[in-house]
Amino acid sequence: MIRWNDLTSQQQRGALMRPAVSASASIEATVNNIIEQVKQLGDAALITFAEKFDKRSNVRLIVPQDEIDNSAHALSTELKAAIDTAYNNIKMFHQAQRPKNIELETTAGVLCELRYQAIDAVGLYVPGGSAPLPSSVLMQGVCAQLSGANTIVLATPVNGDKRIDPAILYAAKLCGITTVVESGGAGAIAAMAFGTNSVPKVNKVFGPGNSYVTMAKQLLSQNQPGFAIDMPAGPSEVLVIADQRANPQFIAADLLSQAEHGQDSQVILLCNDQETINQTQQAISSQLSCLPRADIAKAAMKNSSLILVDSIEQAFKVSAEYGPEHLILQLKEPQKYLDLVTNAGSVFVGDYTPESAGDYASGTNHVLPTYGYSKVYSSLNLLDFFRTYTVQTISKKGLKSLSTAILPLAKAEGLDAHAYAVKVRLEQLENDE
Amino acid sequence: MIRWNDLTSQQQRGALMRPAVSASASIEATVNNIIEQVKQLGDAALITFAEKFDKRSNVRLIVPQDEIDNSAHALSTELKAAIDTAYNNIKMFHQAQRPKNIELETTAGVLCELRYQAIDAVGLYVPGGSAPLPSSVLMQGVCAQLSGANTIVLATPVNGDKRIDPAILYAAKLCGITTVVESGGAGAIAAMAFGTNSVPKVNKVFGPGNSYVTMAKQLLSQNQPGFAIDMPAGPSEVLVIADQRANPQFIAADLLSQAEHGQDSQVILLCNDQETINQTQQAISSQLSCLPRADIAKAAMKNSSLILVDSIEQAFKVSAEYGPEHLILQLKEPQKYLDLVTNAGSVFVGDYTPESAGDYASGTNHVLPTYGYSKVYSSLNLLDFFRTYTVQTISKKGLKSLSTAILPLAKAEGLDAHAYAVKVRLEQLENDE
Repeated sequence: MIRWNDLTSQQQRGALMRPAVSASASIEATVNNIIEQVKQLGDAALITFAEKFDKRSNVRLIVPQDEIDNSAHALSTELKAAIDTAYNNIKMFHQAQRPKNIELETTAGVLCELRYQAIDAVGLYVPGGSAPLPSSVLMQGVCAQLSGANTIVLATPVNGDKRIDPAILYAAKLCGITTVVESGGAGAIAAMAFGTNSVPKVNKVFGPGNSYVTMAKQLLSQNQPGFAIDMPAGPSEVLVIADQRANPQFIAADLLSQAEHGQDSQVILLCNDQETINQTQQAISSQLSCLPRADIAKAAMKNSSLILVDSIEQAFKVSAEYGPEHLILQLKEPQKYLDLVTNAGSVFVGDYTPESAGDYASGTNHVLPTYGYSKVYSSLNLLDFFRTYTVQTISKKGLKSLSTAILPLAKAEGLDAHAYAVKVRLEQLENDE
Repeated sequence: MIRWNDLTSQQQRGALMRPAVSASASIEATVNNIIEQVKQLGDAALITFAEKFDKRSNVRLIVPQDEIDNSAHALSTELKAAIDTAYNNIKMFHQAQRPKNIELETTAGVLCELRYQAIDAVGLYVPGGSAPLPSSVLMQGVCAQLSGANTIVLATPVNGDKRIDPAILYAAKLCGITTVVESGGAGAIAAMAFGTNSVPKVNKVFGPGNSYVTMAKQLLSQNQPGFAIDMPAGPSEVLVIADQRANPQFIAADLLSQAEHGQDSQVILLCNDQETINQTQQAISSQLSCLPRADIAKAAMKNSSLILVDSIEQAFKVSAEYGPEHLILQLKEPQKYLDLVTNAGSVFVGDYTPESAGDYASGTNHVLPTYGYSKVYSSLNLLDFFRTYTVQTISKKGLKSLSTAILPLAKAEGLDAHAYAVKVRLEQLENDE
């Protein structure tokens, strides 16, 4: 436990320091090699990687459509209903984000438009691991579906003789995903960036992944013109602001539900009451003892701080400086404080709004900027699947009016051909008269 | 001149190939060194670079406020009025892009919100060169001003004993820019990313620049958590689609107004009439002879193609494949074709809508995705100066309903602490009853 006001400003920065993420040169070299092989060999490279890294034999790269169509049969009633509910809530909230074109006459005869275009082909990545992550499919897939993208590719790895889990396939089916690639890692990202015989080429790849996936996304988005990624990746994190009336069991559970994500997760509590912090510490210990992923959570707790602040207002200042991915407010009358929120990925308001609600089913997106990027990046939203472009339509009269602005500016900038493109038209108009 | 249908598909790809942009390892090493020096030495590094690269003595880094305030006096009446008109049109069109927060109850007791937050501190870069670029200040500055950003920094280089041009300062004054940095290049970008004694730290840097500026933006956005840039940079380009009734003088003027930007600019004409192409070629030659920047334009024309297509519909397909930064439609009834437009940065509709109108004064933004990025990136718009985040507020009843979705999903994903954060709250509710 730390008392914020006892720290020097250097110590305060230290207390909010995130665990270092090392993108080693060896990872970069490995990933560059993988990218190059996929570019040269296409599917054959993916098959080699699946055999080598995932210990697979008789590799298939694309899941047959009937396996996707029949995926619901393998699910329990509860899980199918849960995926349905989550899908509906996420869809409802993201549908409300649908953009509208804008049209405005800035000067008589000068019509300007801002138009939205769905990105034509998108790739969604869902990491493997000890358990399937259908929620990650829904968070990305609903947006892709609502955007109307023509091509929606999902890639996810499998190990040994496993198949992609039916929960993943069922979520993919709901989202209208057009191709499911049974292959993961940097190779799958490269395959989506370049296209192979089996894997359609996409314009933008979304989703989390391990350090190889992250490196592949980063390298390809830098070096492959026309290819983009969703946002920079980083370890997951939560910051809880709680007052003296908050329930220490709730606080502990929220901190641990973040800590169980990974050893590099970070959790921070800001509280204005010493006794609540003490009780939270005890609750963490007792809850940890029942947690299957206790080892991971314990390791993550080492990056983490329980901080005593002078006031709730101070807590919001510290939070804004840190810029948490998830911000939980266990406060009396939390609505009163919402205007103090800044630099957070997603905010959970009140004692009965745990982070896991947003992770799965409230309707908000769980793909969020982390590692300080919530100061400048958005939480994933429907507009990430669109691009905007402008259209201008100028009448003869409109160009005449506008010329008094264009010609002096072109002259000042020394761009004579820019001016001439207007002058040649004005001359034509004079001839016409 | 090329006839599209005579080409093999490989030759077609070749005809649309962009000039290679080399980001050499030596530029990367130089820029990394500049970044490191600015990080360590702050202002002192900027002063050293100004002396070394820009041959300046008695370097000042920040323009005094009264010089900004009095900048209008040094301008001609025509130029001041032109800047005023451009500012007003750009402001009107971007004001119309102001985002609205979204609020939706996805389930009874589950309120989800999408909120917009202006990025707190932004940096605008305007390159130097043979002439000042006030339009570049306006395009970035209007957005920053409308967003309500607290800190708006403008950086631009000067050479020798020059000062920043009053046209730049007047545009900055209109846009409410808070600090004008008289320093450019990779050093200025690094100064804005880290902050120095004189230069405020910003979260996001916008604007074009030379290969050192571009490299600095790229490296810092990768390696500095919380720091972002607007979009990938590339040479400027235009694609004109014209029919047999288009005016060859207009077409030539539009192609040349792009070509004069730089030797690496690319211009493409797609036309369904051989005679119009021939006349355009002649018009280019005659217009080139009167052009002060003819050498640059001639060099750029070498990267460029005049292509005969079978039909206007085919032209739109070729354009979509290329993805031009600027797309000009000199067609009869051009509105009929607008639904065929895809992958363009900004579209100029009809014979009297030259690109220079959008470059300066129509109201649309001239910062556009280029080099193939118009397939996936947006033209600069007001939302680039905002970020979105989500807020959820869940009632006791809401959490109960949602738990039937959260618990099976948390179980399927093997995240027990996620489930427990809900269970501990449901237990409390049962105890309360």
